[in-house]
Amino acid sequence: MPTVLFAAPSLWPEYQEALPAALAEAGIAARLVTEAAPEEVDYIVYAPSSPLQDFTPYRRTKAVLNLWAGVERITGNPTLTQPLTRMVDPGLTEGMVEWVTGHTLRHHLGMDRHILNPGHVWDPTCPPLARERPVTILGMGALGSACAEALRALNFPVTGWSRTAKPGCLHGPDGLREALSTAQTLITLLPKTPETENLLNARTLALLPRGAVILNPGRGPLIDDGALLAALDAGQIGHATLDVFRVEPLPQDHPFWSHPNVTVTPHIAADTRAITASKVIAENIRRGEAGEPFLHLVDRARGY
Amino acid sequence: MPTVLFAAPSLWPEYQEALPAALAEAGIAARLVTEAAPEEVDYIVYAPSSPLQDFTPYRRTKAVLNLWAGVERITGNPTLTQPLTRMVDPGLTEGMVEWVTGHTLRHHLGMDRHILNPGHVWDPTCPPLARERPVTILGMGALGSACAEALRALNFPVTGWSRTAKPGCLHGPDGLREALSTAQTLITLLPKTPETENLLNARTLALLPRGAVILNPGRGPLIDDGALLAALDAGQIGHATLDVFRVEPLPQDHPFWSHPNVTVTPHIAADTRAITASKVIAENIRRGEAGEPFLHLVDRARGY
Repeated sequence: MPTVLFAAPSLWPEYQEALPAALAEAGIAARLVTEAAPEEVDYIVYAPSSPLQDFTPYRRTKAVLNLWAGVERITGNPTLTQPLTRMVDPGLTEGMVEWVTGHTLRHHLGMDRHILNPGHVWDPTCPPLARERPVTILGMGALGSACAEALRALNFPVTGWSRTAKPGCLHGPDGLREALSTAQTLITLLPKTPETENLLNARTLALLPRGAVILNPGRGPLIDDGALLAALDAGQIGHATLDVFRVEPLPQDHPFWSHPNVTVTPHIAADTRAITASKVIAENIRRGEAGEPFLHLVDRARGY
Repeated sequence: MPTVLFAAPSLWPEYQEALPAALAEAGIAARLVTEAAPEEVDYIVYAPSSPLQDFTPYRRTKAVLNLWAGVERITGNPTLTQPLTRMVDPGLTEGMVEWVTGHTLRHHLGMDRHILNPGHVWDPTCPPLARERPVTILGMGALGSACAEALRALNFPVTGWSRTAKPGCLHGPDGLREALSTAQTLITLLPKTPETENLLNARTLALLPRGAVILNPGRGPLIDDGALLAALDAGQIGHATLDVFRVEPLPQDHPFWSHPNVTVTPHIAADTRAITASKVIAENIRRGEAGEPFLHLVDRARGY
């Protein structure tokens, strides 16, 4: 019977019922514990906020199963030599699709001027149809692909850009120029890596059509904050709706809070849900015990 | 060669290029005119705002082809005995789906408190998933069905209610009670008929779950304005986003304008687009000439 160490104490209240239920449903007899001698541990269920930072003594551990989608705070840990998996939670994906689709439609339909209309202006000018409003998604992994599918179902013409070549996506620096050139709405869903940090900067923001809208539910450091503020002030960017920031909660004195063309949402675009995430963890333990490849294994060279 | 009278002068500038192009594309040789002797007219392209109100002399006219989806201002005309068709424009349907999906997501995600956040409150409480947010659509015709499909693709559990029995829909007074009882979001897309006027009134609004959101992109008179305002003030209705009104533009002194839980959009949810609507008109003329049944024929007994 494998020993599963749940090493994210702050998340235990959420998982203490959901994870045993998911293991039972997957037909896995496991010893699920919150403390164990390192040499007995077969699997570690993990979060970057965990106090466990030295993986050296966990010599028989078959995998570290992360509860978060983001792994940038883990991949640099030199003691972590065990296979590492990211969370790709269907609940997290659904939440992301809802946030991205909702805010894309909000800007497409020009909702803000109706939500905030102190002058009671009745202007029956119709917005264009979604089929006339090109959207670009940077990052076409599980989340980006799901958002692309939802937006295409609503007739938005969607261009996807990926760091590595993928079928149906643009890639590379030339592809990025092309992807940005048509984007009336730009959605950033890339992982944070040294290559993606400040990918949106003064030079790349200038490649967008004038007045483009930016939605960032990905990672705060994808955007150079100062360059974005300058592009907003110059009218090059029409609006930015941001869910993630370099420092969270966003500090009260950050200019994003008071900029009239910035909407701050408090890192709610995608949240791991214990019930659906537990099923993914259980499936990976089943795979580990059956000698099958793990789902969502992190490629340490790519960093995600 | 049939004579087609374009009897909606105010719309002629929009249609003077699109309609001949659509007729040509459908392979129809027709005489398209804006004035004609009544006894020469085979088809009338019509809008309720047209000066033509007496259809008596149009004895050889095979059909009156309305450019609007709504026909309630026409069906009561006793001189109109010719077949009457409504407009079901794919562009109009797309626009409606975008408005309905966008505002459903806006309320689902609680966007307003981020768009308007003068206190810079960072509250990272996630909304539930769409799969946990039941939506009810009253009126499951072409527009209601298209909205249901789009919302279901985003995982919203959608209940449809139709005045007449339809597969997969609730109907009748008992069905209405059931449809209202679960609706966290209620979307009204019924035609205006004597039976649907004030369908949402003090009694039916009380059947909704407390705090329900109402979206009305259908017809203003579906809702008893006073009953809605009372239900909003009592908290029974959480918010109403309204696109259509008994009087349009909505008068400046109407309480909807200043109510904190009402959003007014200026009749923009669905607009007929000349390019796509002209294709529907051309197809109906082709059908009339070929002796085939017309698309979207109005049932005078039902009133739509």
